[in-house]
Amino acid sequence: MEEIFYYIGIIGSFALAISGALVAMNKRLDPFGVLIVAFVTAVGGGTLRDILIEGRDIFWITDPNYIYFILGGAVFAMVFQDRLEILRVQLLLFDTIGLALFTVIGVQVGLSFDLNYTICIILGVITGAFGGVSRDILVNEIPVIFQKEIYATVSIIGGGFYILLVHFECKDGIYQLLPIALIIVLRLIVVYKEITLPSIYKEDE
Amino acid sequence: MEEIFYYIGIIGSFALAISGALVAMNKRLDPFGVLIVAFVTAVGGGTLRDILIEGRDIFWITDPNYIYFILGGAVFAMVFQDRLEILRVQLLLFDTIGLALFTVIGVQVGLSFDLNYTICIILGVITGAFGGVSRDILVNEIPVIFQKEIYATVSIIGGGFYILLVHFECKDGIYQLLPIALIIVLRLIVVYKEITLPSIYKEDE
Amino acid sequence: MEEIFYYIGIIGSFALAISGALVAMNKRLDPFGVLIVAFVTAVGGGTLRDILIEGRDIFWITDPNYIYFILGGAVFAMVFQDRLEILRVQLLLFDTIGLALFTVIGVQVGLSFDLNYTICIILGVITGAFGGVSRDILVNEIPVIFQKEIYATVSIIGGGFYILLVHFECKDGIYQLLPIALIIVLRLIVVYKEITLPSIYKEDE
Repeated sequence: MEEIFYYIGIIGSFALAISGALVAMNKRLDPFGVLIVAFVTAVGGGTLRDILIEGRDIFWITDPNYIYFILGGAVFAMVFQDRLEILRVQLLLFDTIGLALFTVIGVQVGLSFDLNYTICIILGVITGAFGGVSRDILVNEIPVIFQKEIYATVSIIGGGFYILLVHFECKDGIYQLLPIALIIVLRLIVVYKEITLPSIYKEDE
Repeated sequence: MEEIFYYIGIIGSFALAISGALVAMNKRLDPFGVLIVAFVTAVGGGTLRDILIEGRDIFWITDPNYIYFILGGAVFAMVFQDRLEILRVQLLLFDTIGLALFTVIGVQVGLSFDLNYTICIILGVITGAFGGVSRDILVNEIPVIFQKEIYATVSIIGGGFYILLVHFECKDGIYQLLPIALIIVLRLIVVYKEITLPSIYKEDE
Repeated sequence: MEEIFYYIGIIGSFALAISGALVAMNKRLDPFGVLIVAFVTAVGGGTLRDILIEGRDIFWITDPNYIYFILGGAVFAMVFQDRLEILRVQLLLFDTIGLALFTVIGVQVGLSFDLNYTICIILGVITGAFGGVSRDILVNEIPVIFQKEIYATVSIIGGGFYILLVHFECKDGIYQLLPIALIIVLRLIVVYKEITLPSIYKEDE
């Protein structure tokens, strides 16, 4: 299980790096700027979580694999820049998978340090969403998360559901997949609805 | 004494959460965004202080009470949105109490780690003022602290005065209240003057 | 060698403080705002590096000398505000020396914690460039580093070259000066070229 999380975590980093790179290219940053924004988007959430927990190493400092996949994601986005409009749906899926997995991983890390349930959910939201907040601060925008509550609300609901499962001792195997699935389904429903419901903000992620 | 600081620290968090929520609502953020900005405003200063001191837990990670009071402050601000204009004076008082207490707490934490006096004062200013700086960065403004020197200057003066008292061994009981009172009085005098002196900036906190 | 690095590191802090103060004054911040921006510009990179490495003290928390030289740099910039236009070339030199030294110091710190080479280079870039990024976020600009790739690219090349030297056991004395010289020469060439090549951005550092 630990190993599966590791691999999907790396896939999540790859996907978030692409998301960061796209936003940076939209701002016409140079290649190196695109790389930095991709990096920050991918590791920002987990980094803040690991900084906040005393005695825990920053995850990417001790494992350079993340760096390589993030670099790959940024280069991928730059090379296939023109085609990514078509890939938009797949991107959203990856981004949502990233949010779902990073939320659950964040909650899990909090639990492994015996922290209070509320704190664990906050760490889940930070892990899932802070990368995107950092990205928006870097490119000098009001963070999207502050203008579309759904993104983080979905993360809170998923994290809370995971805590509930853990509290009632449903810790093994398949149970960890339920909150992940819940976040993905909720987010996709929300995004699908957004297509029909006009937003009061013109921002698009 | 320790206990009194704890309770007033929580009251300070409550007050700063309200201040953060008001700024966020002024930017028309959604409820969740308001909650996040309130949270960051309330814990930002103490969090950065605890990150900078190696071997010290982040204060709210190990004590969820702060979270509950911050949540309460944000909800309070959203519910009584219309009436808060009337409460403006009380708010300023709470905000100032927060600045005063967080400054002294920050200096104290530095002293308890045997740090240099200058560093202790810097930690006091960070604890008192960085929450507001984070708030302004999040909502994409030039931090108010950079446009009204008084806020942080008052914090420096209060922190320096506290160091002076400690240096001359005036550590017990009542002496800790003197710099708190000094900060509160100075800030209120300054704000009262601002009512009569037109500022060159149109910003209002 | 250790001692030489220490003194030049302090000179680097002094120079970066001046650079930060100039940007802040350009934004018409008050004296205290200028001081804070100077401080953040000078210590931002090394602080983030030390936060990211578990078990390492923040360099300026345990050594107040940095603070005094940064304070000196900010006051110097405020006093000689009018003459600094003439000093522009010297400033660029100091800023470049700061970038070069902080990059090498950052890589070195990573190596001393037995970190992966890629991570060491990233820590070098963070140490050299994050101070400027923080400065730009504080004054609400898109960080200059994202609009002029050269700054950080030069840092990466210098850090990579240093790693190469270390890998082939060229660790002693004079060898550490080579990447520093490389970064300085590259940056100055690049800046000299910029005078003739019009940039697509109107930003100037």
